[in-house]
Amino acid sequence: MTRERLYLYDTTLRDGQQTQGVQFSTDEKIRIAQVLDALGVDYIEGGWPGANPTDSAFFEAAPDTRARLTAFGMTKRAGRSAENDEVLAGVMNAGTPAICLVGKTHDFHVTKALGIALEENVENIARSIAHVVAQGREALFDAEHFFDGYKADPAYAIDCCKAAHEAGARWIVLCDTNGGTLPAEMGEITARVIAAGIPGSHLGIHTHDDTGNAVAGSLAAIEAGVRQVQGTLNGLGERCGNANLTSLIPTLKLKEPFAGRLETGVSDEALAGLTRASRLLDEILNRVPLKSAPYVGASAFAHKAGLHASAIAKDPSTYEHVEPGRVGNARIIPMSNQAGQSNLRKRLAEAGIAVEKGDPRLSRILEEVKLREGQGYSYDTAQASFELVARRVLGELPEFFEVKRYRVTVERRRDKRNRVVSLSEAVVVVKIGGDKKLSVSESLDPQGNDRGPVNALSRALAKDLGPYQSYIDDMRLVDFKVRITNGGTEAVTRVIIDSQDGQGNRWSTVGVSANIVDASFEALLDAIVWKLVRDGAPA
Amino acid sequence: MTRERLYLYDTTLRDGQQTQGVQFSTDEKIRIAQVLDALGVDYIEGGWPGANPTDSAFFEAAPDTRARLTAFGMTKRAGRSAENDEVLAGVMNAGTPAICLVGKTHDFHVTKALGIALEENVENIARSIAHVVAQGREALFDAEHFFDGYKADPAYAIDCCKAAHEAGARWIVLCDTNGGTLPAEMGEITARVIAAGIPGSHLGIHTHDDTGNAVAGSLAAIEAGVRQVQGTLNGLGERCGNANLTSLIPTLKLKEPFAGRLETGVSDEALAGLTRASRLLDEILNRVPLKSAPYVGASAFAHKAGLHASAIAKDPSTYEHVEPGRVGNARIIPMSNQAGQSNLRKRLAEAGIAVEKGDPRLSRILEEVKLREGQGYSYDTAQASFELVARRVLGELPEFFEVKRYRVTVERRRDKRNRVVSLSEAVVVVKIGGDKKLSVSESLDPQGNDRGPVNALSRALAKDLGPYQSYIDDMRLVDFKVRITNGGTEAVTRVIIDSQDGQGNRWSTVGVSANIVDASFEALLDAIVWKLVRDGAPA
Repeated sequence: MTRERLYLYDTTLRDGQQTQGVQFSTDEKIRIAQVLDALGVDYIEGGWPGANPTDSAFFEAAPDTRARLTAFGMTKRAGRSAENDEVLAGVMNAGTPAICLVGKTHDFHVTKALGIALEENVENIARSIAHVVAQGREALFDAEHFFDGYKADPAYAIDCCKAAHEAGARWIVLCDTNGGTLPAEMGEITARVIAAGIPGSHLGIHTHDDTGNAVAGSLAAIEAGVRQVQGTLNGLGERCGNANLTSLIPTLKLKEPFAGRLETGVSDEALAGLTRASRLLDEILNRVPLKSAPYVGASAFAHKAGLHASAIAKDPSTYEHVEPGRVGNARIIPMSNQAGQSNLRKRLAEAGIAVEKGDPRLSRILEEVKLREGQGYSYDTAQASFELVARRVLGELPEFFEVKRYRVTVERRRDKRNRVVSLSEAVVVVKIGGDKKLSVSESLDPQGNDRGPVNALSRALAKDLGPYQSYIDDMRLVDFKVRITNGGTEAVTRVIIDSQDGQGNRWSTVGVSANIVDASFEALLDAIVWKLVRDGAPA
Repeated sequence: MTRERLYLYDTTLRDGQQTQGVQFSTDEKIRIAQVLDALGVDYIEGGWPGANPTDSAFFEAAPDTRARLTAFGMTKRAGRSAENDEVLAGVMNAGTPAICLVGKTHDFHVTKALGIALEENVENIARSIAHVVAQGREALFDAEHFFDGYKADPAYAIDCCKAAHEAGARWIVLCDTNGGTLPAEMGEITARVIAAGIPGSHLGIHTHDDTGNAVAGSLAAIEAGVRQVQGTLNGLGERCGNANLTSLIPTLKLKEPFAGRLETGVSDEALAGLTRASRLLDEILNRVPLKSAPYVGASAFAHKAGLHASAIAKDPSTYEHVEPGRVGNARIIPMSNQAGQSNLRKRLAEAGIAVEKGDPRLSRILEEVKLREGQGYSYDTAQASFELVARRVLGELPEFFEVKRYRVTVERRRDKRNRVVSLSEAVVVVKIGGDKKLSVSESLDPQGNDRGPVNALSRALAKDLGPYQSYIDDMRLVDFKVRITNGGTEAVTRVIIDSQDGQGNRWSTVGVSANIVDASFEALLDAIVWKLVRDGAPA
């Protein structure tokens, strides 16, 4: 039986941007787009060009993706032509192959929010979509408030969608904008839209999680026949978030009736990268990953109950609905480190460290990693620090130099002209071979601005490493993330630092301490040591 | 039309205890039981007496609740009578009015995990339930793995349930133990159980969130006819958690087809206490509340998109599926890039600052906020800092004191025993009226551990504020978030600090600087000044 194609439309970069506390930079949007593309979504909605400077900058610097990049905007306003609407022009000018325009389909919103006649709104939809199509682009119509609109006036809501369909829209996306429609009703209304003449192959579904049913509502609409589903990674989005693609994708790929009937652009290999994609997004946004997240959460395959854990040991299917490796996650059974060994060997191999299956040092590395995770370390992204931990256990980490001590001073005062100025100063004492080297640095950049204590410390540390200096001269600190987390019973600071060399290679290291400066120092030190190892510096 | 009664069965204290990282004390269990009772659930499952010392202690000290307290255990083991099974006796001895016994209904588990004959298991179920009923208690049968069992062998799964029903069980609870069954299938199978002869009035549903569908699965089973629903507060529970009662209850009470057909024990007044109940549980367990939680999350009614915010100002129903006050939550319109004057006036009013519509100072405040957002500040959550910005523009911010200068030293070295130790020390100089006050503090906590430079600075700043000291003595720093962001062309550090007073009131402030210590200091300073303003300290 050939399976029908179901299209995945990601709106992390547009609707996800409405999450309270989330503000993407252009660089972050580019990195997230690459994560999404690797996952295999079909469309990446990048934002609203013209409405938001970051969005415009993203489209200008947009990465080359296999997924179809889509610009978002709204249908033309009343009283002007599609050609003369400068908001619409801003959207068109982003030059994306696909364009998604949101428009009203709920009579109440047309009269209340837009204040125009119902027919005028239908006309605006048709003209706008026709304009996009005439320019040779793929047109999508986001039917805002569709379900509430259908409940209020089914004929009008359908008319709006039909206008878009007849004007040539590839997709009509049924949106439950306020998130209040329950799954059963969503399935029924969707079936009625299809019965009214818009084929499911041209319908999409866009849900929100305001009742905790965004995923279920999407599934109900897919069962009813829509063939495009919209959502965001980790369920980002306004209010309670959008349908969570990290929950939807595995269900669609692994569970019936979906897996047997439908095909998506996500390969089995990409599915096995889902947990990592989810963690990467949180890392980029400096959010704490939700442990209880379906499929990808750290607790999703954690078996705490004693009865469950012992049954799992006999046969994992007793208490697991899917095999955790399918989504790149791992089983956690307290007091057992059996689970991670094959993952561990895989990760060591990525670092060029070969360890035989069954080598007793594997469980020593796992224990060390778990001990450190208990203290607040995280090795999800800090691969370079993870390698150093492994090499230390394996006895393969040369000692290049020793840090004897450091001191950093941070000062804020008023200068002669009564302006507030701040300045940091760092002294680092390092022993290399028999030599003791004392380096000092301050925190001012070439423009005379204070860059803070971590900057001063980093510069003092990297100022004179004697025979190793040539190895680190091209290193620079490119990102710095700080998170408060639990280490044992106390709150501690976890610092993750990204470094880059002259060739553009990037690596991440982690440091943990209650003292933020000390945690940063540990991560800086790891970054330097990792580079010395990689470049084969002599011990 | 009279509405049918739907019973709410809470298992926060039993299944919720399987949450990774959650470990209840007896005292916490008592407090949580009181929160649940005030909410109006019908059953409170307290734990497994005999299996767990905390659970036994809880039943001994159990509070007097309107809800029916229920002890959890398992059906008698093979080869002994119900009367002579000491595990079952431990459960009976807790003396609760209701007893819930879990038993197998999936043939695979009977033969694999129990290793007994299928008929023997049916017999164990019937005898155990009959024993509970004979003792004059209400008996519930938890049909473990029911949905997977039904899919494998429908007749056997039904036989197990019928055995419990015929032995006098008040409720047969259909459990999706592994969380893998999707809502549509859950509804269909439930309907078939009812058709097979067990009336819905005697059926319950127990779901897990492994596919993100625990709430939807419960709703599907209720639509199919079950009249008891099980779940936990905030969706606590093993792996991805149980069905979240904080999501289910408002949907059942406020939305069709449920609200019109079914009645629960939760009154309108209790529903208005739902957000507070949810936060209380997090507070008791020292968990960070999930902002995006349906109905009760801090972001659940937050409108960030500019278009949404302006429509909400005209009519809240444009972008809200229910009125936030119904569940004790509140609307939030964050100050973001897009926000206009109407949002601003609303937010000022919330802070007790009345400014007339059209007042030219409104646009000055907006400009100042935008300017600062461009520098890296964010006022989405830092409402207290936002208020200070507004008051400064309005000329309504008294000057309490002036910070003349500070200096922080961070040092790491080896002590006499060659252990690495670190220590921070802060000096802060403040001018209050004509007095100059010089305070010093170090970063060691009572156990002698270094808590870092921000801790030292915070303590030095709050050490001696002269006449203001009594206003800030009950303040403490409860959360600290750091993010690297863009301020103009350079990366800067944004620090958000949450403070709390002796009454449990919480407020957030923000500081931005390339220097992380300086950014923290700014947020600390705002936190103190905001409290002085709120408490009406004299200038």
